Amino acid sequence: MTDTATKSPVDIRKMANAIRFLSMDAVQKANSGHPGMPMGMADVAAVLFTRFAKVDPTAPRWPDRDRFVLSAGHGSMLLYSLAYLLGYKDVDIEQIQNFRQLGARTAGHPEYGHVDFAETTTGPLGQGIANAVGMALGERMMNARFGSDLVDHYTWVIAGDGCLMEGISQEVVSFAGHQKLGKLVVFWDDNQITIDGETSKATSEDQLKRFEAAHWHTQAVDGHDPDAVAAAIEKAKSDPRPSLIACRTVIGYGAPSLAGTAKTHGAPLGEAEINATREALDWPHAPFEVPDDVLNAWRAAAERGTAARRAWEQTVDAEPADKREAFFDFVAGKLPKGWERGLDDYKKKCAEDQVKVATRKASQQCLEHIVPALPQIVGGSADLTGSNLTNTKQMSGVEAGHYAGNYVYWGVREHGMAAMMNGLALHGGFIPYGGTFLVFTDYLRPALRMSAIMNQRVVYVMTHDSIGLGEDGPTHQPVEHLASLRAMPNVLVMRPADAIETAECWQIALHTDDQPSVLALSRQNLPTIRQYTAENLCARGGYVLSEPEDGTRDCTIIATGSEVQLALTAQVMLNNVGIKAAVVSMPCQELFDQQPTDYRQQVLGKGVFRVAIEALSTYGWEKYVGDEGAVIGMRQFGASGPADQLYQFFGITAEAVADVVTARLKR
Amino acid sequence: MTDTATKSPVDIRKMANAIRFLSMDAVQKANSGHPGMPMGMADVAAVLFTRFAKVDPTAPRWPDRDRFVLSAGHGSMLLYSLAYLLGYKDVDIEQIQNFRQLGARTAGHPEYGHVDFAETTTGPLGQGIANAVGMALGERMMNARFGSDLVDHYTWVIAGDGCLMEGISQEVVSFAGHQKLGKLVVFWDDNQITIDGETSKATSEDQLKRFEAAHWHTQAVDGHDPDAVAAAIEKAKSDPRPSLIACRTVIGYGAPSLAGTAKTHGAPLGEAEINATREALDWPHAPFEVPDDVLNAWRAAAERGTAARRAWEQTVDAEPADKREAFFDFVAGKLPKGWERGLDDYKKKCAEDQVKVATRKASQQCLEHIVPALPQIVGGSADLTGSNLTNTKQMSGVEAGHYAGNYVYWGVREHGMAAMMNGLALHGGFIPYGGTFLVFTDYLRPALRMSAIMNQRVVYVMTHDSIGLGEDGPTHQPVEHLASLRAMPNVLVMRPADAIETAECWQIALHTDDQPSVLALSRQNLPTIRQYTAENLCARGGYVLSEPEDGTRDCTIIATGSEVQLALTAQVMLNNVGIKAAVVSMPCQELFDQQPTDYRQQVLGKGVFRVAIEALSTYGWEKYVGDEGAVIGMRQFGASGPADQLYQFFGITAEAVADVVTARLKR
Repeated sequence: MTDTATKSPVDIRKMANAIRFLSMDAVQKANSGHPGMPMGMADVAAVLFTRFAKVDPTAPRWPDRDRFVLSAGHGSMLLYSLAYLLGYKDVDIEQIQNFRQLGARTAGHPEYGHVDFAETTTGPLGQGIANAVGMALGERMMNARFGSDLVDHYTWVIAGDGCLMEGISQEVVSFAGHQKLGKLVVFWDDNQITIDGETSKATSEDQLKRFEAAHWHTQAVDGHDPDAVAAAIEKAKSDPRPSLIACRTVIGYGAPSLAGTAKTHGAPLGEAEINATREALDWPHAPFEVPDDVLNAWRAAAERGTAARRAWEQTVDAEPADKREAFFDFVAGKLPKGWERGLDDYKKKCAEDQVKVATRKASQQCLEHIVPALPQIVGGSADLTGSNLTNTKQMSGVEAGHYAGNYVYWGVREHGMAAMMNGLALHGGFIPYGGTFLVFTDYLRPALRMSAIMNQRVVYVMTHDSIGLGEDGPTHQPVEHLASLRAMPNVLVMRPADAIETAECWQIALHTDDQPSVLALSRQNLPTIRQYTAENLCARGGYVLSEPEDGTRDCTIIATGSEVQLALTAQVMLNNVGIKAAVVSMPCQELFDQQPTDYRQQVLGKGVFRVAIEALSTYGWEKYVGDEGAVIGMRQFGASGPADQLYQFFGITAEAVADVVTARLKR
Repeated sequence: MTDTATKSPVDIRKMANAIRFLSMDAVQKANSGHPGMPMGMADVAAVLFTRFAKVDPTAPRWPDRDRFVLSAGHGSMLLYSLAYLLGYKDVDIEQIQNFRQLGARTAGHPEYGHVDFAETTTGPLGQGIANAVGMALGERMMNARFGSDLVDHYTWVIAGDGCLMEGISQEVVSFAGHQKLGKLVVFWDDNQITIDGETSKATSEDQLKRFEAAHWHTQAVDGHDPDAVAAAIEKAKSDPRPSLIACRTVIGYGAPSLAGTAKTHGAPLGEAEINATREALDWPHAPFEVPDDVLNAWRAAAERGTAARRAWEQTVDAEPADKREAFFDFVAGKLPKGWERGLDDYKKKCAEDQVKVATRKASQQCLEHIVPALPQIVGGSADLTGSNLTNTKQMSGVEAGHYAGNYVYWGVREHGMAAMMNGLALHGGFIPYGGTFLVFTDYLRPALRMSAIMNQRVVYVMTHDSIGLGEDGPTHQPVEHLASLRAMPNVLVMRPADAIETAECWQIALHTDDQPSVLALSRQNLPTIRQYTAENLCARGGYVLSEPEDGTRDCTIIATGSEVQLALTAQVMLNNVGIKAAVVSMPCQELFDQQPTDYRQQVLGKGVFRVAIEALSTYGWEKYVGDEGAVIGMRQFGASGPADQLYQFFGITAEAVADVVTARLKR
């Protein structure tokens, strides 16, 4: 594969028109979708995929393929058209014809896992370009680990004005420039149109200058001039910086009356306009019909990638067996045998010593065992390393030119961090975790949702998990955050109560390779609340931590994290007045909900009065305490003051638990 | 007030040192806080407040004051020190001594409403600079309405590296440059240090170039050279563009061993270092003691502002009475008498015609009545005007140089939009509303939380509120969003079921002057579900929409928004099999929870089987349906397909309601 692969015998403009017509016809048939962008960027895409991009439709997921990210995901028909034209087996003409229909792989926006050609799910603007920066970082990091023979590929992005207006783009543009990710090329679809009309209504910034300020290589070209686009790509590849190529295009290019207007952005063009476009572009073919010469030219172009993949496989085959195995295990995200031994020893030691330690600190102690055991781990923090305790003694920073490190200083860029972690995970192999304060999950929430939608193993280490952080006050104290994360599908939200549970929650997070996890960790020290068990009790989501000796109970106290110790104190207080309480630790509602009904009833205590205590929003706890139960938690924002005073002030105490139980059971 | 106010007789460096020692001593006493930034920026702040900023401690909230925003809110002691030194009555030396203590006004981060000098609550990075852009826009918009005699003031911001790394900063920097907000000046505390150490670990971009790309005026100065700072401010004021002044500073300036290191950022310096700093800076005074000459010099400087305020009042007094009244009514956010008449007529008409209309469209029809009636309204959308239907026929765009408009094209910048709306509301007078898709509340969530913490009347018009949006698929279909917003304290989350309820929800949102509101509105058409009532039934949060004729019921069906029609259909289906159901419309859980117990029990139906239906996450509904109840909703992410098929696919149908009731009541 060279940069100067020969041109196709069919006029590339005709090949681009195939994208245009597939896109406008599919949108018209679905009566829904976005034709304007695929029509505008068809020429750029045709140049990229016929002459440069290293992808193989016959082996869509081979590790050293180039990554292509359609950040402007609403232009999904560009991606599906390319997949069909290049010959990806899972996108046949029926899929194109069923665009946006329930059950079709060709969803409204490209969905990771639905079509092989989608390297990530895009649509929410700015996420794709951020994923791509993570992928480009992953490429360099894997290259540093396995060498250029095994890992050497580009990441290509198509981004629109929307992606570049979203704040997350700045976070990752700044990061990519700082990390000198030279194998990243972003094509900006500079069509000067957004949904509200001309971009000049809302923005006027000089994008090239903006990217240059972040140390990118920049160029501007006519996006409808294939030779100019090709020349720009050549230049981008030869420059050591990440590259922005501003492609001046006409949205809806080819549509005689509507091209260049917002009307082509998000609605079918209509039969009349489509017919007129057929005439204007000299495309006499029926909808969904691509003439043989054009289709053959596309398929022939795809063979470059197949050849490249075969050559790569030969290189791999020539490697020593142990290196090959290490590489493929890495790429598959396979956890080495026995990796948990250190963690298990740690659990034992914590139980023996009955340590008193903040769960954020316990998390760091766990990482001291995890990081050496798992080569795929990449740690980091959004500039709160010393607070999140996300680093370990063995880790070293990932820096421009020195990508062998395994700890990323993400900067004060929570949103970018999360989306770039998605990119690392999607790239394959890496298991990223990143830290910030729990309250700032709000800043990264759109990317966390993408982790969940895409079933990615990304671990969010969220410390300072309640009013227990104290003096920083309400802007830094999470309240609604656990409830709001628990409401999100496919996320494991875990709040361990002590060092032992912290180790168990880390085990769960790393074993769960199809879901992101959120670890909510305390700033303040917490006592050890239980003994060692070989079984991972947290994996049940909730379990009986302490029961009256005779196994009968008058009430159940359910708690998580730092409030489990309060529940245990309340249990003693109640015992002193002759009330028998069981204490349930419930680090993870999602896992508890998956347990058999019998188990859940036994843990919760059928028919007994139940009270839940958690120093966060009470929202959602009714499900576990029931109609007659009580919830002790936050019903307002926090306040600034020492943590112990705040617990008193907001009434989140063992006394409050004992009082509510006593009052109820005396009725 | 001129730009060249005479210098103070006391050396300004000494005046700056007063800030330094108050800050380090207060942090030391609290044993918590951030001394580094106040010490680093003390010189800049001293120049700004002794020579330029137009504030009056004796009338902290006079309308034409300059606005000062400490975007780097962790440096709160800078703000409190300034308040004390300038003579704000509510920050006396006891407040300084009680920094970060429970009940003190001097909270860990500056809290709006706690101290008069805090124009906004800051701490979550990037929010402050975004609020400031909103304030600067508000200044220009109010100037366009009332003239330069009444409105002519600056907005000053101190921002740190963290604020500039956050993506939201790019959104608002781009916006401010585009809107040519020339009376906005941002001081960047360029101390090259963040929590993780040197900024070079995570960023290397050329900030001046970045701001220039957005058409800002930029300068770089030594932040410890008062004359250079003053000269830069003069230049910034004389330039018509918004200004960035990069102030090269030393974090923790003056501390002999720790200055210039991350150790001064977020922890007390310790007694030894504080003593050494006293020697180094020749400050032989006890903690919290400011020598008379220094204090007097500060108080004298503040008199400039008092004089300016008095002059302004004389100008105001000379205005015609009706203009004065209009101005003060505007500033107070007072709703004119009779403003609701049009909305009430609209309710009547919808009831008469039994219209079938999407609630987003109904919202636009409401706005056609609201906008002409309320001068303070400012509308807008994050580039989804035609989808959110946030504009009206009478509105005109707010553009650079033409600030008389009342509709803002915010661009694809949801987070910036929300934070700038906060700024508009905080500036005084304006009632901002802004639109995007409900799913993208995730993008603006940190700013929405600030609306709630600060009790600001900001209305979030969030359309496409369920899988009912159809083909755009799971990335665009909200699931967990309503639950996650309901969990947030102090937010009214409203999901109206038809045009009549939409009008009522708009009335509630506008009457509620101490809370933000979220209006969740449908993309798809919805039938009218009730008759006209003079009473605003939605103000109860939930109400019995339809009851069996004899007033007795076997079950209750609770629904919101687009699912209320399904509940009514299920009611008929159940009636056909001899089961009597009441239908409850519950547009707002928060308001319902505030109703008396009797009312709530009566609405929910004590002791009867209850089922809730809402095409979003089921999380949190157990509270209303109880232990034996059922919830029909989403337990996973959505899918791409036509809306009606999605409702069937996910089992959110009248049949599902009827089935679950029938199955339960037959047991």
